[in-house]
Formats: sequence, structure tokens, C-alpha cells
Amino acid sequence: MDIKMTAADMGAFLDKAFEQVKGDFTIEDVAPNTLTVRLNVQDKHLRPGGTVSGPSMFALADVSAYLVTMAMIGPEALAVTTNCSIDFMRKPAAGIDLIAKVRLLKLGRQLSVSDVLIYSEGMEAPVARATLTYAIPPIKST
Amino acid sequence: MDIKMTAADMGAFLDKAFEQVKGDFTIEDVAPNTLTVRLNVQDKHLRPGGTVSGPSMFALADVSAYLVTMAMIGPEALAVTTNCSIDFMRKPAAGIDLIAKVRLLKLGRQLSVSDVLIYSEGMEAPVARATLTYAIPPIKST
Amino acid sequence: MDIKMTAADMGAFLDKAFEQVKGDFTIEDVAPNTLTVRLNVQDKHLRPGGTVSGPSMFALADVSAYLVTMAMIGPEALAVTTNCSIDFMRKPAAGIDLIAKVRLLKLGRQLSVSDVLIYSEGMEAPVARATLTYAIPPIKST
Amino acid sequence: MDIKMTAADMGAFLDKAFEQVKGDFTIEDVAPNTLTVRLNVQDKHLRPGGTVSGPSMFALADVSAYLVTMAMIGPEALAVTTNCSIDFMRKPAAGIDLIAKVRLLKLGRQLSVSDVLIYSEGMEAPVARATLTYAIPPIKST
Repeated sequence: MDIKMTAADMGAFLDKAFEQVKGDFTIEDVAPNTLTVRLNVQDKHLRPGGTVSGPSMFALADVSAYLVTMAMIGPEALAVTTNCSIDFMRKPAAGIDLIAKVRLLKLGRQLSVSDVLIYSEGMEAPVARATLTYAIPPIKST
Repeated sequence: MDIKMTAADMGAFLDKAFEQVKGDFTIEDVAPNTLTVRLNVQDKHLRPGGTVSGPSMFALADVSAYLVTMAMIGPEALAVTTNCSIDFMRKPAAGIDLIAKVRLLKLGRQLSVSDVLIYSEGMEAPVARATLTYAIPPIKST
Repeated sequence: MDIKMTAADMGAFLDKAFEQVKGDFTIEDVAPNTLTVRLNVQDKHLRPGGTVSGPSMFALADVSAYLVTMAMIGPEALAVTTNCSIDFMRKPAAGIDLIAKVRLLKLGRQLSVSDVLIYSEGMEAPVARATLTYAIPPIKST
Repeated sequence: MDIKMTAADMGAFLDKAFEQVKGDFTIEDVAPNTLTVRLNVQDKHLRPGGTVSGPSMFALADVSAYLVTMAMIGPEALAVTTNCSIDFMRKPAAGIDLIAKVRLLKLGRQLSVSDVLIYSEGMEAPVARATLTYAIPPIKST
């Protein structure tokens, strides 16, 4: 299955569709069923001690799973998250960008399932992992 | 087991310890093993169409599970989230505050487990549910 | 919404549709969006020390979420589990039946979401909790 | 970190410690932080149509996460599952053994976190994925 959006397409789509998170994420790399997304860590993402907050890691996992689904079906679909399980395994390094690597494990007609590993940039051990399910709305026949 | 913090204690503790979310949450009610927390919905919490974002609902669930643990063990502990599973079941009503009702299901020496239901204020059907595990650091003997 | 199956209907349906688990489960009580199911604990459900195994608790949560969905939509649907998150919080009492109390939190056209608490019979604190999502196949128009 | 148990050690350990599942699982391969486990599919694992049941897949994920933790810390520890999230993505092929590939993502003093992909033998797309947390009891000093 071919990719229906490039990294540049996705960046433009994000900026337009989600104004509230403009500038937060950069699409680093895209290939069939896989994607790399950077969280450009800013003050609003931090907790005392400079570590990235849980909600910021959730947001990174969520946008990564969304984009890897969009990459395969195209930007027209109004997919919504139905479920996420996330494990926080290590404290992120202070003030360092986070890198999410996402794999699309299933793309069905109604659901997509993706697996995400999140790293502090340059570190080998992941700081978090997540699995997300997106519900894909039925395609209207025309 | 008695409560070790009042709603006012928790509000003051949140404001002091987590500057980045100052004003986001109000503790509505506290009783043994249960707590009600309001997300004071602001523009930064929204998505196009006025619905509250997934990361904002995650943040509400996370802070609620944290506070219900703190209520029982006191504010000195450095508990950290280790796991969350969250289900997004309905679209939140546009521009309406969210109310989280959290129950502490287990308080062990190493782990707490809490269950959260999130509602758009005034609605009967929950918009989301979550379960969170917090790791409680060992108490230093003196 | 009315119940479409009685406890007796469900028992008969289980015995017929799932021969491998015949006699394992008893439907104790049914009401709109809620159900109580007993695991008739037998040697095959145990681990050394007499405690009920994790897979047996998973099976109880799974069948409970399935039946509460069936209760509302009727037995004709071929619903399948798509996701489960389960927390094991306490060791079950040795050789005691388990009681699952399940609530249907959402019944959509495509998905149901249910929440389960599992108790050793007669104990106040739950031994496990689980949330399950079932995919409901599209109803064929006739 | 070196492996503290071989595949043969693990097989013998399973047979001795968990009589109820004797013969169900075969350790195919072990390396640091990774393990391959086979479910020897038998009639008791099946549902109508010949597909492997959800509880059997859960049991395979659970034993795999347990063994990959044991492989690294040795068989003396009484680790217990505290959490599992599992996604059922495709129907397993009828009557075919399942193969679980598990990775240990974190081995802390108190918790291990493992990620499991389950395949029908010989198929490319996974039928299920799971993440499991084990609590590791404190080591008694002597």
C-alpha cells in the first residue's frame, strides 16, 4: 500500500487542522506503515525539574498514531481516538526533544491500531510506549 | 483510612507544584478514596469545533488519579504515573467544563490503582473513562 | 433500553455457543446495562497455592462484557473483543468463586465499552478490574 | 546483561511450577531481553470455527512476559502480573499454533514492562499485541 501523504503534506495538514498545537510537532520521516515524529519541547511541555509531562507524551503518541493512519488512508477522514494504553517507563531527559516511532499494526475498515515508542533524542532506552486505536468513519459513497 | 489533605490543601499544592497547569483544575469534592475534579475548559484545551482535546482529558484523568492517591498518603510522596488506559467514548459538549469522578481501587505500598469517569458538566453519559497506576516511592525510614 | 435476553437465555446461549467453557459461568443477575456473572472455580482455573489464574480472570471479564452487550442487542450479533485492559490488584482467596460485576458504559453502532470489577465472593475489595471493547458487526439490512 | 535461564531451563521450570498448563507452551528461542514462545494449540484453546480463544491468547502473552522477566532475573522471583493491555487485531488461522515474540522494554527494581506480538505460525500480520507489567518482589537481603 502506498503512502498518500508526504511528511510535508502532514506538516501542512497539522498546522491547518490543529491550530492549538502549531509548531509542537515535526514529521521527521515517513514510510509505509511507519512514521517518526518529533516533539519540539517547549516550556509548556515541562514539569518541575525540566522533565516532559505525561500529557505531552500522550499528545505525541496520539498525533503519531493519527498521522500514520492518515498517511495510509489520506487526510480526508475524520478518524477519532477510541482507546489508548500508555506505559511511562523512564524519566525523559531534561529539556531534550522527544522522538516517537510509530508502526501501524492494523488498518481495517473501521479501526486502525498503532504502536508507539517514545525516546529522549539520542537515548537508546525508550521513555514510554503506547498503543492507540482510531475509529475510521465509514466512507460516503458518491 | 482518613483523608490527609482537604480540597483547599490540594488546590494550593497543585498551584505550587505544577505551575504549568495553574488555574486548569478545581477540586470540587473529596472523601475517603474518592474525589471530584473540574477541568476549567479554556481555549488551549479545545480542538476545532470546540470539543475538548484528548490530551486535555488525559491530563484531567492523570491529575485526578494523582490527587486521590495524595489525599490518602499525604503530599510528601513523589508518585509517578506508570500506566494509563483510557477510552474515549463520546464527543465532549463544546465549551463545557469537564468533571472527573475518581475512585481509588487499590492503595498498596508500591502501587495505587484508580478508576476515572469523565463527564461534560450536566450530562449523564460519560465522555471518557480511564484507569491509572501510580508508583509510590519507598518511604525512607528515619 | 430494554433487556433482550434473560439470565436463563444467556446461560442457554453460552452453553450452546461455547462448549469449551460449559459449566464455568453462571449468570447471577441482569438489569439494563449491568450484569453479575459467577466463575464456578474448578481445579483447571487454579495456580499453585489455590489462587485463581490470570487467564481465568481475563476469561471471566471477557464473557461478562460480551454478555452485557448481548443483553442489550440480542444474541444474533457476532461481536468480537478488540481491546482489553486489565489490572490485577489483589490475590484472589484460595478456592473461592469469583463474582464479576459489569457495567455497559457505551453501546454505539460499531463498538461497546464495558467496565468490570471482579471480587472473591464475600470480599469487599476487588481483586481485579478490566475494561473491554467489543466490535459489533454491521447489521445486514433485509 | 546476561540470560540467567536457557530455553530448556524455562521449559522445566514451567512444567514444575505450573502443572495446569503442562504441555501448552514451548520456548522456541531466547536471547537477552527477547523470547519466542509457542502455544501448542489443542482443542481446549479453541472456539467454534477452530479459532484460538481470547483467554488462550492472553495466557500466551502473560507467560511470555513472565518468562522474559525470569530470563533476566532468574527463576527465584515471585513476580506477579499487575497490568495487561491487549488488542485483538485479526482472527487466528484455524487450528494453527500461535507464536509469541516478546521484548523486555524495561526491567526496574520493582516493575518489568514487556511488549508481545502474537502470530498464527507462518503468517506475516500479527493476530494480537499485548503489553504486560510484572511487579517484582523486593529481594530479601541475607
